[in-house]
Amino acid sequence: MSSPSDHPVYVGLLGCGNVGAPLVQLLSRNADLIKARTGVEIEIRRVAVHNLAKERDVELPHSVFTNDADSVVNDPSIDVVVELIGGIEPARSLILAALKAGKPVVTGNKELLANVGKELFEAAEAAGVDLLFEASVAGGIPLIRPLRESLAGERITRVMGIVNGTTNFILTRMSEEGSSFAEALAEAQVLGYAERDPTADIEGFDAAAKAAIIGSIAFGAVVVAGDVYREGITDITPDDIAAAAELGYVVKLLAVAEERSGAVAVRVHPAMLPVEHPLATVRGSYNAVFIEGEAVGQLMLLGRGAGGRPTASAVLGDLIDAVKNLHPAGRGATFGTLTRKPIQPIDDIESQFYVTLDALDRPGVLATIAGVFGQHKVSIQSMQQKGQGDEARLIFVTHLAREADLRATMHEVRDLDIVKHAGSVLRVVGGEE
Amino acid sequence: MSSPSDHPVYVGLLGCGNVGAPLVQLLSRNADLIKARTGVEIEIRRVAVHNLAKERDVELPHSVFTNDADSVVNDPSIDVVVELIGGIEPARSLILAALKAGKPVVTGNKELLANVGKELFEAAEAAGVDLLFEASVAGGIPLIRPLRESLAGERITRVMGIVNGTTNFILTRMSEEGSSFAEALAEAQVLGYAERDPTADIEGFDAAAKAAIIGSIAFGAVVVAGDVYREGITDITPDDIAAAAELGYVVKLLAVAEERSGAVAVRVHPAMLPVEHPLATVRGSYNAVFIEGEAVGQLMLLGRGAGGRPTASAVLGDLIDAVKNLHPAGRGATFGTLTRKPIQPIDDIESQFYVTLDALDRPGVLATIAGVFGQHKVSIQSMQQKGQGDEARLIFVTHLAREADLRATMHEVRDLDIVKHAGSVLRVVGGEE
Repeated sequence: MSSPSDHPVYVGLLGCGNVGAPLVQLLSRNADLIKARTGVEIEIRRVAVHNLAKERDVELPHSVFTNDADSVVNDPSIDVVVELIGGIEPARSLILAALKAGKPVVTGNKELLANVGKELFEAAEAAGVDLLFEASVAGGIPLIRPLRESLAGERITRVMGIVNGTTNFILTRMSEEGSSFAEALAEAQVLGYAERDPTADIEGFDAAAKAAIIGSIAFGAVVVAGDVYREGITDITPDDIAAAAELGYVVKLLAVAEERSGAVAVRVHPAMLPVEHPLATVRGSYNAVFIEGEAVGQLMLLGRGAGGRPTASAVLGDLIDAVKNLHPAGRGATFGTLTRKPIQPIDDIESQFYVTLDALDRPGVLATIAGVFGQHKVSIQSMQQKGQGDEARLIFVTHLAREADLRATMHEVRDLDIVKHAGSVLRVVGGEE
Repeated sequence: MSSPSDHPVYVGLLGCGNVGAPLVQLLSRNADLIKARTGVEIEIRRVAVHNLAKERDVELPHSVFTNDADSVVNDPSIDVVVELIGGIEPARSLILAALKAGKPVVTGNKELLANVGKELFEAAEAAGVDLLFEASVAGGIPLIRPLRESLAGERITRVMGIVNGTTNFILTRMSEEGSSFAEALAEAQVLGYAERDPTADIEGFDAAAKAAIIGSIAFGAVVVAGDVYREGITDITPDDIAAAAELGYVVKLLAVAEERSGAVAVRVHPAMLPVEHPLATVRGSYNAVFIEGEAVGQLMLLGRGAGGRPTASAVLGDLIDAVKNLHPAGRGATFGTLTRKPIQPIDDIESQFYVTLDALDRPGVLATIAGVFGQHKVSIQSMQQKGQGDEARLIFVTHLAREADLRATMHEVRDLDIVKHAGSVLRVVGGEE
């Protein structure tokens, strides 16, 4: 292999669809940031696609594309291979060929890993190169790297995950809107969260493949999709969900991997979770993984488990990791030096504010106070008034306002005769932004 | 440096207290697992402590201990240094000396990183060795590694965290029990969640140091503790919390780091969060960090932000990482081969079960059904009966029972004349285990 320090690291991309196209876009859009963080440039040099005629939303010269994936893997100028074509073959053969040639591989292929993972891991080990697959489970959520690295010294006892967004969307709708399974599925299909043939999701096959990968990594054990006990959610009724709610539970499709007395148990089935369990709060198409370890206790990682851009972000993280391991200067500690950037003073930060004032309860008071807000360009989103004898407590929530403007407002308001007491000022986060 | 493949990797530990002692225990307890995952042995060879006379709950020969930290760092046989003494000096000088000598350093020292992080990062970069500090923010929660590696290609726009367990405990108590700040603080002190002098926690200094580190890593910028705008929670009243609840908010102490138009803004203050925000569900002494990125969308990482064992787990993850980078055989893809472990059949797995049965509503029916459960060693935790004309719906939740026993129970119950319909069977997770 030529030394990557002489030229950009050249990537051979297999597949340029739902995840591949946003990956190409991210690499281009964030090139500055990647260079700053790793010291190297990453260039997509060849892209293998099934259909050369198809229009793709990527800015790459036409000459980069080929429909001969083997030629990409075997191209001596390609340093790293990213496999995003899915399925077992030809992905398996292509990855094995790349590893054998000493090229690190990044893949998001859960089906492949859940069926022939051991063969691939051993090939990577034999070749001494990276095989990274963060994107194969739970999309953009960092899970594989925390399990393999952050928790490398941790005895993990159980991992439970909501790893299928389609079924979580359906169960959330059934739970919050009282929809039937069929209604919620139809809605998921309209919104693009479920495929026209939803079998892989609703029968738990997708979750089972992910559960096999989670079980393999968490427990260092060979677990294939066929080892996973599996039940889907098609039999869940609104009555079950209502009864669960009455008992203090919510129904979720869980992937569970446990190790007990040296044996590994991996399963996917609907389960009732206590409402106060962190996984119970995971709504809609979000994914989350709950990890229990002897020393670390309980962890939960939550995020977008699917979607082209979140998944491409995970692929890119792996790709950068592989590149750093290839590139001597990128090894170890280095993550780019910290640069001096301006620190924004608090005065310039915009927030919504919650403000309470105790004021005299008489006509015109609100107008006077609101006038002061307005003079300082602080606009009021909502006001509640609570009488308390001669006085009233006024509770304001503002629209986004500059910190300095709010402070000036409060300064002036406090001096008004009609204001007896100015109470707390709290910033409101997660609303307007 | 001698080649680590000839002997165990030798660790010099600075500090053996709240985090150091559990680290020593974990290394011993999980030695098999670490060897399997990394191919190397890690041995604590020297431990520097302030007070040699103090009893410590670690199984190490007395000869390992010294009160001369410099001698540990300068010992040529020491491969890696773990700094857990805290504070600026002598931690800073010791770490700089170790890095200069080409020794990777793992630290959990937030104060140090939040004040002289840039100097330390540059020293690590110059020496080409690791400086890892996962434990410095949010204890056992993998945060620094996901930010630096998983999200290496991601343009992060904002990070918001509940990074102080003491204040989150206090605010949770105020919110859920209606306690005053003083009552909740006193309770936190009794339970050991707050120190006798709680200033660093309740005034936001602890969170501000962590916010500075988060801002530095997320945005590659120099952010020191003094750059962080800071307000504590001492002025929060039960009235504020009640008013927030009425408006659909909860009050949390947030650390917020944002980058906007090239400027970085980092602040710590109480904030009102919409109840449906993932951070709003983080209760008690848990920590959580919410990350927003352009491609990945929203992520949340939740877990134990403090405590000796969770924090030691994070230190150990870093230590293993540093060791792998030292050790040629530990580099890149390798994380140990997957071993064949027995797969536990679903029949042997124990769960609690939720079972619904529609049965005739007449005396003796419940006794008959309960008898069948009992014959199969399935014990009933709760039963609810709902009349519906001649029939009643019986909703059972069992204690832990073997899957095979539950299945046999259901098989027999379904055949009873008095049972008209057997409905869903769902496993209950997160209760008895």
